[in-house]
Amino acid sequence: MQQQISVITLGVADLTRARRFYTDGFGWTPVFENPEIVFYQMNGFMLGTWLRTALEGDMKRPSASPGGFALAHNVATRDAVQPLIDRLARYGGRMLRAADAPPHGGFRGYVADPDDHAWEIAWNPAWPTYASESERSVQ
Amino acid sequence: MQQQISVITLGVADLTRARRFYTDGFGWTPVFENPEIVFYQMNGFMLGTWLRTALEGDMKRPSASPGGFALAHNVATRDAVQPLIDRLARYGGRMLRAADAPPHGGFRGYVADPDDHAWEIAWNPAWPTYASESERSVQ
Repeated sequence: MQQQISVITLGVADLTRARRFYTDGFGWTPVFENPEIVFYQMNGFMLGTWLRTALEGDMKRPSASPGGFALAHNVATRDAVQPLIDRLARYGGRMLRAADAPPHGGFRGYVADPDDHAWEIAWNPAWPTYASESERSVQ
Repeated sequence: MQQQISVITLGVADLTRARRFYTDGFGWTPVFENPEIVFYQMNGFMLGTWLRTALEGDMKRPSASPGGFALAHNVATRDAVQPLIDRLARYGGRMLRAADAPPHGGFRGYVADPDDHAWEIAWNPAWPTYASESERSVQ
């Protein structure tokens, strides 16, 4: 079966607050938005921020906490990691872990979005395939 | 800034149990595994299942519940949606919503993985771009 994910949907309490984090913080441009959802075209799939109540209703399950998962965004250099975390914190994020070097190499830190979804901001020279794949599939 | 995600990491309590869901349920092949993490090469990024305690330690935040988000996996036809949900339920998943037609078109249902991370299994003829993008970037 195709190893494929088409959408990552994050439940959010306040669409405007989430939009500020993603558009002003990350600097991303929505590809579609209406009063209950904002979509961003990512590297070969969509990232959606959807009103949590709507998402919960759609998946027939209430959900409360940010949960045990993380999304990783890679940057091009080690020096770009902490500044992006700081920038995201200025746009409604909350730093979870200041950037440092993990045992497996590279450099990374964590920041939570306004709804507490965790983002790892990472520089990972050992997995250069990520960058080239992303660049190839970015629209 | 590049609209890019390099890794989606799901915290799991039991790596073998999670592996069964993803390899036998979805039929996916790991690209890397060790005693604490299994990676799957997806369409332009990695999906990781990592022992929850290790992920929590890495992101410096304990996390308990499955959380307010969903990952979507698209299938090629309407008739493929419910059988995949049923199959995933046989490999440790739990059906959250039987497949039906959402207001925005297409056909979808939800199934939780053994750690309660939500997957939407969808057929979405209105967004054909997903399939072609995925095919282009699948390794």
